[in-house]
Amino acid sequence: MTGSAKAEGEGGSMLWGGRFTGSLDPLMVTYNESINFDRALYKQDILGSIAFARANAKAGIISAEEFKQMERGLLQVQKEWEANEFVVVPGVDEDIHTANERRLGEIIGKHVAGKLHTGRSRNEQVVCDMRMWLRDQLRSIELHLVDLLNVLAARAEREMHILMPGYTHLQRAQPIRWSHWLLSYGFAFASDLQRLRELTRRVNRSPLGCGALAGNPFGIDRDMMAKELGFEGLLWNSMGAVADRDFVTEALQWGAMLMQHVSRWAEDLVLYSTAEYGFVRLADAYSTGSSLMPQKKNPDSLELLRGKSGRVFGQMAGFMMVQKGLPSTYNKDLQESVEPMLDLVKTVADSIQIANGVLSTLTTNSDRMRAALDPFMLATDLADYLVGKGVPFRETHHISGKCVAKSEETGIPMNELSYDQLKAIDSRFGKDVAHVFDYDACAERRTAKGGTCKASVEEQIEVLRDLLKET
Amino acid sequence: MTGSAKAEGEGGSMLWGGRFTGSLDPLMVTYNESINFDRALYKQDILGSIAFARANAKAGIISAEEFKQMERGLLQVQKEWEANEFVVVPGVDEDIHTANERRLGEIIGKHVAGKLHTGRSRNEQVVCDMRMWLRDQLRSIELHLVDLLNVLAARAEREMHILMPGYTHLQRAQPIRWSHWLLSYGFAFASDLQRLRELTRRVNRSPLGCGALAGNPFGIDRDMMAKELGFEGLLWNSMGAVADRDFVTEALQWGAMLMQHVSRWAEDLVLYSTAEYGFVRLADAYSTGSSLMPQKKNPDSLELLRGKSGRVFGQMAGFMMVQKGLPSTYNKDLQESVEPMLDLVKTVADSIQIANGVLSTLTTNSDRMRAALDPFMLATDLADYLVGKGVPFRETHHISGKCVAKSEETGIPMNELSYDQLKAIDSRFGKDVAHVFDYDACAERRTAKGGTCKASVEEQIEVLRDLLKET
Amino acid sequence: MTGSAKAEGEGGSMLWGGRFTGSLDPLMVTYNESINFDRALYKQDILGSIAFARANAKAGIISAEEFKQMERGLLQVQKEWEANEFVVVPGVDEDIHTANERRLGEIIGKHVAGKLHTGRSRNEQVVCDMRMWLRDQLRSIELHLVDLLNVLAARAEREMHILMPGYTHLQRAQPIRWSHWLLSYGFAFASDLQRLRELTRRVNRSPLGCGALAGNPFGIDRDMMAKELGFEGLLWNSMGAVADRDFVTEALQWGAMLMQHVSRWAEDLVLYSTAEYGFVRLADAYSTGSSLMPQKKNPDSLELLRGKSGRVFGQMAGFMMVQKGLPSTYNKDLQESVEPMLDLVKTVADSIQIANGVLSTLTTNSDRMRAALDPFMLATDLADYLVGKGVPFRETHHISGKCVAKSEETGIPMNELSYDQLKAIDSRFGKDVAHVFDYDACAERRTAKGGTCKASVEEQIEVLRDLLKET
Amino acid sequence: MTGSAKAEGEGGSMLWGGRFTGSLDPLMVTYNESINFDRALYKQDILGSIAFARANAKAGIISAEEFKQMERGLLQVQKEWEANEFVVVPGVDEDIHTANERRLGEIIGKHVAGKLHTGRSRNEQVVCDMRMWLRDQLRSIELHLVDLLNVLAARAEREMHILMPGYTHLQRAQPIRWSHWLLSYGFAFASDLQRLRELTRRVNRSPLGCGALAGNPFGIDRDMMAKELGFEGLLWNSMGAVADRDFVTEALQWGAMLMQHVSRWAEDLVLYSTAEYGFVRLADAYSTGSSLMPQKKNPDSLELLRGKSGRVFGQMAGFMMVQKGLPSTYNKDLQESVEPMLDLVKTVADSIQIANGVLSTLTTNSDRMRAALDPFMLATDLADYLVGKGVPFRETHHISGKCVAKSEETGIPMNELSYDQLKAIDSRFGKDVAHVFDYDACAERRTAKGGTCKASVEEQIEVLRDLLKET
Repeated sequence: MTGSAKAEGEGGSMLWGGRFTGSLDPLMVTYNESINFDRALYKQDILGSIAFARANAKAGIISAEEFKQMERGLLQVQKEWEANEFVVVPGVDEDIHTANERRLGEIIGKHVAGKLHTGRSRNEQVVCDMRMWLRDQLRSIELHLVDLLNVLAARAEREMHILMPGYTHLQRAQPIRWSHWLLSYGFAFASDLQRLRELTRRVNRSPLGCGALAGNPFGIDRDMMAKELGFEGLLWNSMGAVADRDFVTEALQWGAMLMQHVSRWAEDLVLYSTAEYGFVRLADAYSTGSSLMPQKKNPDSLELLRGKSGRVFGQMAGFMMVQKGLPSTYNKDLQESVEPMLDLVKTVADSIQIANGVLSTLTTNSDRMRAALDPFMLATDLADYLVGKGVPFRETHHISGKCVAKSEETGIPMNELSYDQLKAIDSRFGKDVAHVFDYDACAERRTAKGGTCKASVEEQIEVLRDLLKET
Repeated sequence: MTGSAKAEGEGGSMLWGGRFTGSLDPLMVTYNESINFDRALYKQDILGSIAFARANAKAGIISAEEFKQMERGLLQVQKEWEANEFVVVPGVDEDIHTANERRLGEIIGKHVAGKLHTGRSRNEQVVCDMRMWLRDQLRSIELHLVDLLNVLAARAEREMHILMPGYTHLQRAQPIRWSHWLLSYGFAFASDLQRLRELTRRVNRSPLGCGALAGNPFGIDRDMMAKELGFEGLLWNSMGAVADRDFVTEALQWGAMLMQHVSRWAEDLVLYSTAEYGFVRLADAYSTGSSLMPQKKNPDSLELLRGKSGRVFGQMAGFMMVQKGLPSTYNKDLQESVEPMLDLVKTVADSIQIANGVLSTLTTNSDRMRAALDPFMLATDLADYLVGKGVPFRETHHISGKCVAKSEETGIPMNELSYDQLKAIDSRFGKDVAHVFDYDACAERRTAKGGTCKASVEEQIEVLRDLLKET
Repeated sequence: MTGSAKAEGEGGSMLWGGRFTGSLDPLMVTYNESINFDRALYKQDILGSIAFARANAKAGIISAEEFKQMERGLLQVQKEWEANEFVVVPGVDEDIHTANERRLGEIIGKHVAGKLHTGRSRNEQVVCDMRMWLRDQLRSIELHLVDLLNVLAARAEREMHILMPGYTHLQRAQPIRWSHWLLSYGFAFASDLQRLRELTRRVNRSPLGCGALAGNPFGIDRDMMAKELGFEGLLWNSMGAVADRDFVTEALQWGAMLMQHVSRWAEDLVLYSTAEYGFVRLADAYSTGSSLMPQKKNPDSLELLRGKSGRVFGQMAGFMMVQKGLPSTYNKDLQESVEPMLDLVKTVADSIQIANGVLSTLTTNSDRMRAALDPFMLATDLADYLVGKGVPFRETHHISGKCVAKSEETGIPMNELSYDQLKAIDSRFGKDVAHVFDYDACAERRTAKGGTCKASVEEQIEVLRDLLKET
Repeated sequence: MTGSAKAEGEGGSMLWGGRFTGSLDPLMVTYNESINFDRALYKQDILGSIAFARANAKAGIISAEEFKQMERGLLQVQKEWEANEFVVVPGVDEDIHTANERRLGEIIGKHVAGKLHTGRSRNEQVVCDMRMWLRDQLRSIELHLVDLLNVLAARAEREMHILMPGYTHLQRAQPIRWSHWLLSYGFAFASDLQRLRELTRRVNRSPLGCGALAGNPFGIDRDMMAKELGFEGLLWNSMGAVADRDFVTEALQWGAMLMQHVSRWAEDLVLYSTAEYGFVRLADAYSTGSSLMPQKKNPDSLELLRGKSGRVFGQMAGFMMVQKGLPSTYNKDLQESVEPMLDLVKTVADSIQIANGVLSTLTTNSDRMRAALDPFMLATDLADYLVGKGVPFRETHHISGKCVAKSEETGIPMNELSYDQLKAIDSRFGKDVAHVFDYDACAERRTAKGGTCKASVEEQIEVLRDLLKET
């Protein structure tokens, strides 16, 4: 067995004192080993080994009979994992690769098992396992994301009629449709989906057959292995193949951006579910109470979603730091790529599903939303009204500002200012100005593409649904 | 004028003491304004305004004559910028948009200029300018990257014959071709190129015609504007369009990953140019001396390249923090997107060019490289030799390890161990074992795709060149 | 000639093509030079040189007369900078150190000026300048921070009477004093102040006399120089002294944490200034309008403050990345320490002052705050009432929860539930339960240290003011 | 019932489809619960509860007898944890606080156990447990750090005689003592120690008695509890106390900086243990082999140490992101503080011990170090020699540079250039110039404080040892 920490009578040279006296440092064994987390890759490791053995058999490095034994043995190891019967030997099975090969040797004998690794390096094996695992997980995440977007589109379609304040700077700005708000996040998530598909293709490239760094000396058929394992192509340079963890970095960057969208979406909903806003109410399944305050109903799900954006960002930032300035090819620092990858997948997969659960079950309070519209939100429309009379916008903006001020001074809501009051501010106001003060009409005036009028929002739903289709 | 800090007799309410006594805080003016950096976008701002005015003319919001005046005036403003004659008015021109419109009013009169902004919001204008600017810059960076890869491919082609040690864990591992090392980075940069092209398409989407958040109420033709400005499509949701700075984030993530590749490449070359390695020598143009030590020739260019990877990472990390948990649509926090974008573009564009300069001009020392090969680097081949005799690899690995140990014990280089010494270790060694100890043959044995044999490296060059072609 | 890029007929070796054809790369000159930003350190550079020359005179390396000339010349250079008359020579003055020494040579002649750098390295000079500059700036920031805290304490003292809802999870939780809210941030900023003072002491250590890395060979009196320059002690290892940028990192970490406090404080105030909350109103000096929507008054100052927390974090994260894994002593990567330091100081100093301006001038709306209190916020007190009757808290929590539910069901505010209704829920309710429903009494019941009762809040103000005193 | 997700017939409102159909989302239960990691705090949770109960007894909220029962029961719960017999009830014991209280109720009955939480909130309880736990761990880390520094000082003392090249820009610069190199890191770690002690004092402040946010209404004696639990003081504002995770952030910042020092130290040793440098050899206990290449001995321990610097940075960056812009007091996002804290402590504690193990057991190769000194490293001394003759340093630097060039041209080592050759370059060279070319003398010339001469290095060791003493 290679690779694990061994001791060769170093104890005697402990001139400097130090923490331990034997020649072996048990802490180093645990500091070094990865079996506690890379066991997640057991299946990929086994499939990769079968493909490698098959290719070695084709290349004449092992016999057909030896391959059969290996395949049989490896499938048995897989069954043991699946049945949760695999027993990891502490201090020996330092990683999943060692563990699987150790067990294979017990099953089929060391002589044949000892040929499995011919021409293969752990460097290529690790990264082959990781790429296969991540590819599968990303495809599963893709489905979760599509589910979320379908729910979002369905809600947007059914709740088209609900008007609410649109905010900029968290100040009430203009009336919008609740569906328009939903879709603003829908398109952000749809971009995440597009990026995910691009990313998955880059993950799904085969390093198998690259050796430790210089390539395989037994003429192994890399294309055959890649095909068997579902890869879409090869990594073209053996040194790059073992050094490259960009597929992890890129997945982390992707996840960190998706979670930023989640954090903003959650922030909005946290606000909308406060007493002060009261626009939505979370289902109890996604809320929790307080150990001290009996009246509390807290949006824990949303807060966790928001908080997890930091978690994923941290995994990304940390792993980018790990790679900075590393010399060529494999360095042990890269072992730090596995845990961020595992954590990313779990966090993002869970978070998308939780977000979906929250969105599917929250109830809207359209009355509170409409009640939060106020006449000042029509000030732009008031300015636009005068534009229609030929007044330059910069001037109308100023005039409308005066109407706002008049309303604030007098305490009369802007839509209740008398025609005379308006006329006194600017003589170009006509009686038809009254038509301005209608929230629904205001929304329906936004007819340009991407605007909040009904037809445009319906078009957006259609465009969004098109984006969900696999390209 | 809107937007800038105004004072309305707040001085009297300064009950709490505090730092200033007047009603205006000059520090707030500078804290708020962006003209010092967003002036970089002057041209995009002008082109965007022309397109917007043309579309407003088409929509009947302004007359054809008014449009002509605006266009003439805006082109004059552009000329003033280009001639470095534009005079920014401190405290008034808070941003490039205000500055350009202020100047336009001086040229064509406020009455017509005051119509330019009809139905338009600074929210959409800012992001339109940024997207156009970034798109252009990314296309320029793409050319620099292709240049670098062409140089790399050319060097790989011409210096195919040079063998050097390949390292893992920075320990000598197996002989490789210098060209193989070059290409390992070549493929990393080629992936950057692929990502850049994907990214540019996402940047190049038009927000124009989205208003402040709810859409444009004058039925403006967004497709026409997008076409005029060279966008490849629309942003589909007006709220998302003004809130979204993902195009900056994604560019920063992209740049941070590219710079990580640069940092690893630079690290290798810093090492290879030390006295201890001596594999390459930088051109004087990319080295500097010491103010104290007369003998020094320092690889400053490479160290700066490596260091700049931190800079770009920081811009990315910082801007991601800015966006975390922001509520919907535009918040002033997003002003912090401009400087990271500008810094990214400058740093990455410069760095790629510097890297190209370094690579174009460094000289290789093939003698030092070959001298650094040592017989232990053939230990795998020694093991493989016995594999050819039918010995399981795990056993041959062990036997080869004994040969290494024997060499270390005796001080006899492994390739000079006598046949008898080898035979004593394992009887299956034949006389033909001598053929193992040939570095060139060792490299040529790596024939599988992606390996370091000549044919495979040539194939890699071809594949790389194919990747450079615009898809 | 030191440091800058030189060319020695490399043009001929441009076998690989590449971007430029001459032997000099003008881009490398600008990529390498730091004069554009390190000119900020001109004064420290001059003071450091005077101290160094004085010590060299004491050590007998230069004569007293030579020192006098140097001092006179350097002071003249300083005056030129102060009068904005110093002319930087492009391509020659690569950094502030080179620029000052070049100019000194012009003033007092190269023969004497050429002795200034005896035994000194730019490595120690750079870091000496940076430490002096940063120390001075941190002391200035300390004053700004104390100012802010004094304003905060004064407001807390005067507005003690204002009650508002305290939130957890952004849900209304319990009534608190506005002053209590203020002080919650006051203590966070007071910890920043404590950390700042600790940090400043670590910054203020002298590297001067450390040479390039191995120490000074002319027996220079480091203590004398340190004293002259106001340092509190020496850096004890010459290699560490030139390699160490921890003083920048620590300042960045400090600033990033302070800005996190600012971001949370700003977030609260952004919320409190919405239409939905309406608790505070920003002074116009710290708000801005909208280019499109006439009614808008946006809390730009707060949003910028919140956003700048990302900026400072990014500078910190970036510079930590720069340093990761660097080999011993000075590497050119460390040039990337200067800009983050400058940006940190400007951002933090400005932000504290802006925060102070915002806080000094905002107006509170105590009516809106009180109106936002609702009876459910007394549910804990209702449970506590029964605790007073000997009921275990877990049970009282449950009973109080039933009262909340009854109120929600019936639509009767909890404080208006009849005595019979309460009694029906739990027979232990007495008539005195009515006393529970008093917000002021509720606040006054929180008498333990740190609580929201008046006496405790007053004690907090006292403690806070004690913390402001320099230790 | 507290906290955990409940279902109340929400199934019927699942209008939007979505992922699950029942009213409970099992994924939400696991997404929300923290028992899998916060069980690490079981002991602190129990001690905190005992102190709280004791104080409630003193305040008359519970009887002396009730307190005794609680104490007995809680100590039994602690024993069950220690004996690994505590059985967590899935879906019920959502966190350690709930688990302990649930179990207490089973032991002493719900009636008395139900009084434990009187006046207490989970908000204060969580943070009390965390602060106690972290304080204890930091003190343990402090001991590891002192151990490491003692080993470092001992090695520096014993191996004082070894000279090696000092590098800047990774280019050979000047001869230094190996001990000087060791101490350059020693002082960086000593600053970490100083910061750790400052930090621990800030961690060790008591939040207990702060309630959910507004304070404790039963007049609990916070000082008494703080004393019992070993806190050094109180947190002074109840809102701040429950909102504040700065103690985690600061610990993470601290750890990230320490690990940066580790990363640079490890980088140096990785280089020094390459074939090219050959200065040190790691003990086998801290090296590993290759699964493919029999000759490999890889410095895995150092690479992991270097890599872990990224891990800790990521935890810091992630958790800072979590906190950015959070509103006042407790938000569930803050649950994301626990795992980074646990990971930090484990990573840093292990890493310091591994570093100690590596340092204690590595062997130096003083011959290789001395052999790596080359005459060019004396070029500064050659310039200094002429300074002694009154030549301005800028001129001597130039002359010495000519000697370097002559040596490079002729291939004659600089110390073997003939007296005539030197004289030809500058007539001021005397015969005594030969004394310059002595590496030991060169080191001994660096007599100023902090330099590499023996006396100065000995002084550094003394200073370092003084810094280890608890202040």
